[in-house]
Amino acid sequence: MTPVTFFLFIRQLFVFRGWEFSTKFLFVIYYVTAQSKMLDFRRKYIFTLLAIATAFFLLYSFLKNTFKCDPVIATSSAEVFSSSGGKVIYAITPTYYRPVQKAELTRIAQTLMLVPFVHWILIEDAAETSTLVHNVLNRTGLTSRSTQLNAKTPSNFKLGRNDPNWSKPRGVEQRNTALAWLRQHYRDHPRQPGVVFFMDDDNIYSIELFHEMQKISDSRVGVWPVGLVGGLMVEKPIVDETGTHVVGFNSLWRPERQFPIDMAGFGISLDLILDNPDAAFSYDVERGYQETAILRHVTTVDKLQPLANKCRDVLVWHTRTEATKLDGEKYLKKSGAKPSDFGMEV
Amino acid sequence: MTPVTFFLFIRQLFVFRGWEFSTKFLFVIYYVTAQSKMLDFRRKYIFTLLAIATAFFLLYSFLKNTFKCDPVIATSSAEVFSSSGGKVIYAITPTYYRPVQKAELTRIAQTLMLVPFVHWILIEDAAETSTLVHNVLNRTGLTSRSTQLNAKTPSNFKLGRNDPNWSKPRGVEQRNTALAWLRQHYRDHPRQPGVVFFMDDDNIYSIELFHEMQKISDSRVGVWPVGLVGGLMVEKPIVDETGTHVVGFNSLWRPERQFPIDMAGFGISLDLILDNPDAAFSYDVERGYQETAILRHVTTVDKLQPLANKCRDVLVWHTRTEATKLDGEKYLKKSGAKPSDFGMEV
Repeated sequence: MTPVTFFLFIRQLFVFRGWEFSTKFLFVIYYVTAQSKMLDFRRKYIFTLLAIATAFFLLYSFLKNTFKCDPVIATSSAEVFSSSGGKVIYAITPTYYRPVQKAELTRIAQTLMLVPFVHWILIEDAAETSTLVHNVLNRTGLTSRSTQLNAKTPSNFKLGRNDPNWSKPRGVEQRNTALAWLRQHYRDHPRQPGVVFFMDDDNIYSIELFHEMQKISDSRVGVWPVGLVGGLMVEKPIVDETGTHVVGFNSLWRPERQFPIDMAGFGISLDLILDNPDAAFSYDVERGYQETAILRHVTTVDKLQPLANKCRDVLVWHTRTEATKLDGEKYLKKSGAKPSDFGMEV
Repeated sequence: MTPVTFFLFIRQLFVFRGWEFSTKFLFVIYYVTAQSKMLDFRRKYIFTLLAIATAFFLLYSFLKNTFKCDPVIATSSAEVFSSSGGKVIYAITPTYYRPVQKAELTRIAQTLMLVPFVHWILIEDAAETSTLVHNVLNRTGLTSRSTQLNAKTPSNFKLGRNDPNWSKPRGVEQRNTALAWLRQHYRDHPRQPGVVFFMDDDNIYSIELFHEMQKISDSRVGVWPVGLVGGLMVEKPIVDETGTHVVGFNSLWRPERQFPIDMAGFGISLDLILDNPDAAFSYDVERGYQETAILRHVTTVDKLQPLANKCRDVLVWHTRTEATKLDGEKYLKKSGAKPSDFGMEV
């Protein structure tokens, strides 16, 4: 192995961990030692300096990461990861302000800190992007591998104060905005292997799920079980004996849907999104048909790719956070006092 | 700086990141280069071998971590961290079986994956520890820095099916069992600096909170704001102008309590737990007095240590997950079908 091959090999492995500098110096040390038979005094001196420099860069990258509270991922972007041959997962998350928003975004961001090959697209239902969301991305070190967008839901499709949350389609405007962003991005940039996944801010995701998504083949849609949804412990695709084909679904709720599957239960190969501009969500569908609305444009049931141990492992759960009770704030308001979070971001 | 000091300095910084081997070799390289004026041919040869060995150890630790799905922490235990001088946070979490248990434990475990200096004590309300909890620890790589215990709540203190969840004290047996385990552990092991924290499995914790806890001084109790609790956006200690003393609390709910503070709002220096065997939770207190029950044994309000930017930052939120609706399972049972999760762990 020549020094250059050795350098490229090591660098490839470390490039998305922020150790580029140190590995470059490691190479220099290796190279100089390999040549050491010819070392004269001046070279030995340079050599010592290089070893010290390596140590300083290791120290520097360590401290830099530590103070970001993000020991591994802060310095690596999903794009950099992709350049090393992996698939980028584009996680598309609609979000809106409510008291628990920052808490939930912080939690889900901390999950994404563990999966360096995810690029997070956050779309706020608002007239402009917010400082709150920006701060979460910044504090979790995800700024370099996320995109902050906004798209206001048209007022005629907005939920009223007393409407049940399923009575109008939610996230349509936001998810479509993210898809438009992706299509625009890849008009301007070279294509790379990727997967598009719709991720809510209150579900629970095992990081193993994102590793499964990387197995989705080009031009296919990957599917897997989802826990605690549709009135069942688990909704899952039913697969044939070989485990390679989906032959049905166990859903009890609206099983007549073409794709009786939850939004958290599938990932779409990026090329299908880019090559099918019609693939989108719609206001013009019944409750529970959003998944079918987009999937019918890009695949059929027989072409679905079963993942997660032939659809036997549950790696995502459909959960909801209880609404926050803020009676104390009402009391403070009535008595003319400042709100408890005056001057703070909660 | 002598080579030995240099080695100890670097090693100290890297010891809990699993890079011990590589840093040792880095030292050797540094040491040999420092002596390079005297290098003869044989030494140069050894030197080349050492540089290659360093590269292999870097590669080895990288691959080992990658395949564990736990890029940083799997190889380091809280004990190892402590040996490098940091404080171990003992996070004590009571838990019990319900459909959402595995999902919630997976999520909180993924948060703890990012904080290598936390040792997690999980106590199940059950006659024995469960495979479900064991599997979560195993899959998240936390086995080496966790302790799995069990303690069944006495039947007379158990919540009935229709009791509201605040009507009887919860977690008393489990938290006391964890405290007993800690006291036993430190009868058998040398003392180390540490902090005891009571962590629920459904709250939301910013990883920055654990870094704050490491600042708790010996023999003191650290306090900070908690979001979305007690009917308020934030319950917080009120501090004096210097930001070093707690002079009151903004709680509206039972403000007459000696410590009107949520379980998520304080961390106790380990030595206080070990030196005060009476510090424990109790069945014999009114609703909302568990925090006071333990804190009155170990501190007074004037001795509390304000943290989190002089109690101005919210780094933990009190949230609850909605109960899961499983109507579909009832339907399957009535019609004699297998449950949806037959043969699976959800």
